[in-house]
Amino acid sequence: MIRVGVVGYGYWGPNIVRNLQGLDSTCVEMVCDKSSSALGRVRKVYPTIATCSDPSEILTSSSIDAVAVITPVWTHYELAKKALENGKHVFVEKPFTSNTEQAQELIELAARKKLKIMVDHTFLFTGAVKKIRELTESGALGDLYYYDSLRVNLGLFQHDVSVIWDLAPHDLSIMDYIIKGEPEAVVATGERHLNGVEDVAFMTIYFPHNVIAHINVNWLSPVKIRTTLIGGQKKMLVWNDLVADEKIRVYDKGVKIASGEGIRDVLVSYRTGDMWAPQVEQLEALHVELGYFADCIKNDQTPFNDGEAGLRIVKMLEAAEASIHKRGELVRL
Amino acid sequence: MIRVGVVGYGYWGPNIVRNLQGLDSTCVEMVCDKSSSALGRVRKVYPTIATCSDPSEILTSSSIDAVAVITPVWTHYELAKKALENGKHVFVEKPFTSNTEQAQELIELAARKKLKIMVDHTFLFTGAVKKIRELTESGALGDLYYYDSLRVNLGLFQHDVSVIWDLAPHDLSIMDYIIKGEPEAVVATGERHLNGVEDVAFMTIYFPHNVIAHINVNWLSPVKIRTTLIGGQKKMLVWNDLVADEKIRVYDKGVKIASGEGIRDVLVSYRTGDMWAPQVEQLEALHVELGYFADCIKNDQTPFNDGEAGLRIVKMLEAAEASIHKRGELVRL
Amino acid sequence: MIRVGVVGYGYWGPNIVRNLQGLDSTCVEMVCDKSSSALGRVRKVYPTIATCSDPSEILTSSSIDAVAVITPVWTHYELAKKALENGKHVFVEKPFTSNTEQAQELIELAARKKLKIMVDHTFLFTGAVKKIRELTESGALGDLYYYDSLRVNLGLFQHDVSVIWDLAPHDLSIMDYIIKGEPEAVVATGERHLNGVEDVAFMTIYFPHNVIAHINVNWLSPVKIRTTLIGGQKKMLVWNDLVADEKIRVYDKGVKIASGEGIRDVLVSYRTGDMWAPQVEQLEALHVELGYFADCIKNDQTPFNDGEAGLRIVKMLEAAEASIHKRGELVRL
Amino acid sequence: MIRVGVVGYGYWGPNIVRNLQGLDSTCVEMVCDKSSSALGRVRKVYPTIATCSDPSEILTSSSIDAVAVITPVWTHYELAKKALENGKHVFVEKPFTSNTEQAQELIELAARKKLKIMVDHTFLFTGAVKKIRELTESGALGDLYYYDSLRVNLGLFQHDVSVIWDLAPHDLSIMDYIIKGEPEAVVATGERHLNGVEDVAFMTIYFPHNVIAHINVNWLSPVKIRTTLIGGQKKMLVWNDLVADEKIRVYDKGVKIASGEGIRDVLVSYRTGDMWAPQVEQLEALHVELGYFADCIKNDQTPFNDGEAGLRIVKMLEAAEASIHKRGELVRL
Repeated sequence: MIRVGVVGYGYWGPNIVRNLQGLDSTCVEMVCDKSSSALGRVRKVYPTIATCSDPSEILTSSSIDAVAVITPVWTHYELAKKALENGKHVFVEKPFTSNTEQAQELIELAARKKLKIMVDHTFLFTGAVKKIRELTESGALGDLYYYDSLRVNLGLFQHDVSVIWDLAPHDLSIMDYIIKGEPEAVVATGERHLNGVEDVAFMTIYFPHNVIAHINVNWLSPVKIRTTLIGGQKKMLVWNDLVADEKIRVYDKGVKIASGEGIRDVLVSYRTGDMWAPQVEQLEALHVELGYFADCIKNDQTPFNDGEAGLRIVKMLEAAEASIHKRGELVRL
Repeated sequence: MIRVGVVGYGYWGPNIVRNLQGLDSTCVEMVCDKSSSALGRVRKVYPTIATCSDPSEILTSSSIDAVAVITPVWTHYELAKKALENGKHVFVEKPFTSNTEQAQELIELAARKKLKIMVDHTFLFTGAVKKIRELTESGALGDLYYYDSLRVNLGLFQHDVSVIWDLAPHDLSIMDYIIKGEPEAVVATGERHLNGVEDVAFMTIYFPHNVIAHINVNWLSPVKIRTTLIGGQKKMLVWNDLVADEKIRVYDKGVKIASGEGIRDVLVSYRTGDMWAPQVEQLEALHVELGYFADCIKNDQTPFNDGEAGLRIVKMLEAAEASIHKRGELVRL
Repeated sequence: MIRVGVVGYGYWGPNIVRNLQGLDSTCVEMVCDKSSSALGRVRKVYPTIATCSDPSEILTSSSIDAVAVITPVWTHYELAKKALENGKHVFVEKPFTSNTEQAQELIELAARKKLKIMVDHTFLFTGAVKKIRELTESGALGDLYYYDSLRVNLGLFQHDVSVIWDLAPHDLSIMDYIIKGEPEAVVATGERHLNGVEDVAFMTIYFPHNVIAHINVNWLSPVKIRTTLIGGQKKMLVWNDLVADEKIRVYDKGVKIASGEGIRDVLVSYRTGDMWAPQVEQLEALHVELGYFADCIKNDQTPFNDGEAGLRIVKMLEAAEASIHKRGELVRL
Repeated sequence: MIRVGVVGYGYWGPNIVRNLQGLDSTCVEMVCDKSSSALGRVRKVYPTIATCSDPSEILTSSSIDAVAVITPVWTHYELAKKALENGKHVFVEKPFTSNTEQAQELIELAARKKLKIMVDHTFLFTGAVKKIRELTESGALGDLYYYDSLRVNLGLFQHDVSVIWDLAPHDLSIMDYIIKGEPEAVVATGERHLNGVEDVAFMTIYFPHNVIAHINVNWLSPVKIRTTLIGGQKKMLVWNDLVADEKIRVYDKGVKIASGEGIRDVLVSYRTGDMWAPQVEQLEALHVELGYFADCIKNDQTPFNDGEAGLRIVKMLEAAEASIHKRGELVRL
């Protein structure tokens, strides 16, 4: 039984606690939050879990094996560092850290201490993303052409980070999981309208072999959209995460180019066939992910969503931020 | 009765001819196309319309008042120039010309000859765009935040122009019609996968006062999407051009920012209310546009979609092309 | 070349004429309509087609091989009868006749005269219905459980027939084409709100082996819906005729019942799998149907949508009308 | 504080307990269920709530004010009767009882004992139904024409009741709440395919003044649909309960009939205008309903969803069952 301390009981923390409590391999020993009303909610629902307002109580406790850091991004580094220094495994909410230096330091520290870091890229544990990965890995889609994600809604505004740091980590982690090859460079544009951080932003990420990814994130959309188009040489797919069923639709469609005689004689032919919506696993992603966290600790196995994965995402976020401030200048990774 | 000669009877030409024939104020005298089977189709449906394979027959005919140039973009300049030189008003398919120099020359020539140029920005004559313009002009949306269009489908590949020159003119002309203020700069990214021109591309256009426009065009999408989000301070709207009814949905939603005491204490509050789908005029846009073309000639009135409007779009297309080739470098307008 | 005379150039007639003209095996000799403006429209679009206002000109013409009767249902019998008596094949808009006696008389007359009757059950020639029939015939759906159609919209009100005679023939003809076995009885309910005929109506049709069909037709719906659910033992499908793509969705879903020990111990298990949207032929149904009409005449072949098929639909319409007037009383067929 | 005992902790019971615990005015004293694993779940989540397997413990407890009966319908009467006899208010899951006699007896018993009965017609407490009632009560829709509900999905099969007793109570209770005037008669059809009870069924309910209601319930549908059309003289609405936002769409559409000169000259004109989706209250319906239950007890007020309301629904269910067994025979209420 992995004994976990949870720091942060705001929007996401309750889901972490509920799932850790629901697993056979984990239990929550203590929850920390600055807000006394948050702690009151913990005690009401989980009378057996201890609470505290000072994270040190968790970070230094001898009865805790692992710490879940579910706080604003600018606090991740300090909390995770202290947890690792005190010999605790760390589960950190996305994005991993505020910058690449912090991420690298934590990775090295964990390696030295032989501890696990897992970054909470929850989407990688959804049935939908698993199925997409299965389709790309198996070659069903053929060579990849593009990955294009639209992730917009009204709010939630963060005070300290832009819409890119808030919403794009989801897409970047999925993209990182699905697209082979290292991303080469980032171009980002966006605009601020309200509180001094970008609330509308667009990222292009260049990959080798003409693969291109694009991410559209927006806190000022009247409607919520979570739609990703993925185009391959053999098949194309649309993932709509907001529908209850048929989240993934695979289209047997494509384009063929044959060279004709003259310069302008490139012959284009279209291929259209059936559409197929594979059944997708319905388990709660966070439940699967936290079970995997416990397994990695027990079996001394490095999770695929480890500190390195977290670092790769932070690198792209940093690049996007740099690009956006220079109005779309290409930032090499 | 304005007597029109139509050059080009491929994909769009038949719609031009049908609408010109259906109007009381216009008639088609002659249709020109290189393809004899195209001309055969003309004669079958319209036994009274003359046909020819050499555009000069139309461009120099004394019984023709106006010429509709419905050919590939790289031929627009030569055909329009000759038509104007021969004293004919010109209706040109979008985009106006291949570059800004050509556009400027045609504008000057028309001015000198006191002839009208109309660029076929058909969407500006749809009930949907009229309604959107009405909503922005009246101040119903409040100050504009962003304009974000998704225009993707499978094909139609063009041999000589990229997806930007093919699909983006629609969005650019609508944006030009709706957003007040001159666009300042363009950032574009994209990728080529098949025949040497971009088939996937993304444009950001910066406007004064933090207004930002974004256009996503793609010839390799398995599904057809035509959706535009427009965010304003007071209201936001979604325009889905593919639905039969309720193309435009106006949301009484918004965000308010109030300063709190500390640096991080920016208070964000959301406002959500009813959604409203105004009834939209159902007339065929091309019919309205061609009737307006005839009126402008008769009343010696400058159309709002004149050569200058066409030039503004070509400028942005040129800028996008330059930016895309430099991987997102900002190109000032 | 089958020479056709078309009686009736209202809502549907122009489609008949356009398709007959577009086929190689047919041509329209003459069009008849009481309205002079309708005949003016014929002459404008088809300068070579003769027009008349007295149907006798068509029905007795020696240069006409077949007559298309595209008029209100109460006129079908007289027009078709005279056409058959004059040795002409007959293509009749649905529903075939106003009652079963008329239908039977026409069938006998055509048999005696060795002429063809085809009833315009256009939907049977759509790619969607062909695909559904293929799926049911091949046993892919397994034993059929039910057929349930929702066909509602605002208008078009008919003066002389109820919404059942107007809209249900579509569903009845499809049902007749797809469901094996003779329908046994009909129960219908409905209500009149405006002009003395039912504008909202519901039909249940009982078939052998517990197969049940249900049809919901409504002229007073604010939205247009054309959705049919078909449930089988092995698979189930949803046909939405209003979407451009993926009209038919086949679900690998089902229910299994196993008997448990006690009376109440019936064990129900659900099976859910992938969804699959087969590509559907995109040809214009009326084009295919009229080509088939010409083929049947040329090859002396009995169409499957012959007078007998028309009669079966009229029988069910009559039964529904009788049932509705007795507030749902079962009417055996 | 109303102390509640909950009998039944299967599918719906946990929602009852969670909401009763979440209210300030109520608390759960004891939960009863035959299943020991169900009781284990209760104790895990709510360590302070007592559990038992014999309902008598709850029904006779002196520390319990009210009993929630959340068990199969055939057990409602016995449990509710004993609860009332022991001086407890009763909250009963829908449908109220298995037949009208039981319902009447319970109503009389409660009246004699001056106790409250509330039947759990949860939908009446949703924001959507409240808004629909507001629109009908205010006259915004004008005179009602029809109420047409489609409520289909795969499962959940019940062993002892048909799909009508399972799903139709929702629609009947909403209809009862919205349509003025007593229902006059019922016609129902349906079919059994698996375990001896109807799994597909259709009900028509006749009201005075040509108002007609229709309910389509189906346990064998591959897709889940919850859509209701309501047509009025002035406006029409569509309620889709499965979408997150814009559940209710009000259409400014209608039909006008004017008499012309001749018999057939009834002139029909259509009116189409804007669509409007009013914002709908987002509170959890069950929370609101249980709070109202507590208020009714405290203030000695008769709930509008009392035993009489439950009885009216049971009457229609009984009539539907009788009609379906006689294949659609009209059953007067």
